[in-house]
Amino acid sequence: MNKKEELAKIFPVWNKLSDEEKETLTNGSSVKTVKEGAVIHNGDEDCIGLLLIKKGIIRIYILNENGREITLYRLFDRDMCLFSASCIMNSIQFDVKVEAETDVEMIVIKAPVYEGLMQKSLVVANYTNELMAARFSEVMWLMEQIMFKSFDVRLAEFLYQQMNIEQNSTISITHEKIARHMGTAREVVTRMLKYFQGEKMVRLFRGGIEIIDEDKIRKMFD
Amino acid sequence: MNKKEELAKIFPVWNKLSDEEKETLTNGSSVKTVKEGAVIHNGDEDCIGLLLIKKGIIRIYILNENGREITLYRLFDRDMCLFSASCIMNSIQFDVKVEAETDVEMIVIKAPVYEGLMQKSLVVANYTNELMAARFSEVMWLMEQIMFKSFDVRLAEFLYQQMNIEQNSTISITHEKIARHMGTAREVVTRMLKYFQGEKMVRLFRGGIEIIDEDKIRKMFD
Repeated sequence: MNKKEELAKIFPVWNKLSDEEKETLTNGSSVKTVKEGAVIHNGDEDCIGLLLIKKGIIRIYILNENGREITLYRLFDRDMCLFSASCIMNSIQFDVKVEAETDVEMIVIKAPVYEGLMQKSLVVANYTNELMAARFSEVMWLMEQIMFKSFDVRLAEFLYQQMNIEQNSTISITHEKIARHMGTAREVVTRMLKYFQGEKMVRLFRGGIEIIDEDKIRKMFD
Repeated sequence: MNKKEELAKIFPVWNKLSDEEKETLTNGSSVKTVKEGAVIHNGDEDCIGLLLIKKGIIRIYILNENGREITLYRLFDRDMCLFSASCIMNSIQFDVKVEAETDVEMIVIKAPVYEGLMQKSLVVANYTNELMAARFSEVMWLMEQIMFKSFDVRLAEFLYQQMNIEQNSTISITHEKIARHMGTAREVVTRMLKYFQGEKMVRLFRGGIEIIDEDKIRKMFD
């Protein structure tokens, strides 16, 4: 498949672009492969472009001077990463880091090319709005859970205790049951467990949870 | 001044709208006054429209079930509040509350009217993008300070100690000096002190800081 065909397949609003816009986008993009663990975007001033994921997982996170990290969210096949091109908007006054969690095949769209499209195409402008709103929502969810409820800390402590009670790194319990224990909704438990799984602290399976990084779990509430 | 003249004065991209768009916007807006302390938007499902502030201050915050609040940011004269109309975008999956901190005169733009403009006008679509990016930046700043550094907690503790050392609720110290004490940049100190001032914990003046709510300061680190 050539680059244009790839874009046609995975660029979200391809069918709504004019022929000219399709050409511009194709000429302003390049296909890249990065290895697992590579830092794709390092915050600071660099503005490498928008990343359209063909295959793989990338992680978007922030990092402080003591090396502590917070994962904001992950992106998967066909997702697009906007903040690796934060220079396209004056009002983006923060910076994130982007890392390949698996080998990643992606299409990199040059920042000025995308910016030009945004200024000319209503479809691209409004798609970008939705994209930013979706990422904003992820971050707001995380903030509410962590700042208000320390729900991450409480859940880590609960899992650790349960592991000790059952004398087994595999806990047989449903998300529903944990939710009742902790006075919250099942959806909240499921989402935070998935976050933990992404952080490689647990592995989820039907009917239970395996603790795979006891240390990391304990450090959360210790 | 009639409504159209008001909009011409304070709607951010008024001059770039077509005559028809100006009419649509004017017909879809209404002028409102709310009293200090009024909850203008209560999260949940309501979608009262975009708020364009003529005069006054509104506070955007989140609130948990235990009544704990976090102020996300404040908006002032000529600012526009987007998230009181979160229904205009599918991807906004979070909700905030909005309160009048002073008596507020504002223009309320109906959500479907603004949504219609966004779908038709590149200028409005891209302006909305910048607006959302600016709010996202505010929230990211707050999150980084609080989650990483507990800088709010540390600064509160520092002020409290300093107050006790000086035996005076007014501390004579520059932001620069605090920054050096705390191993951070002056801008960070100034911004957090302004946040504290907004929360009515301190009052800032040239060359010093007055503690006006000792209790609230102490509760932050106690």
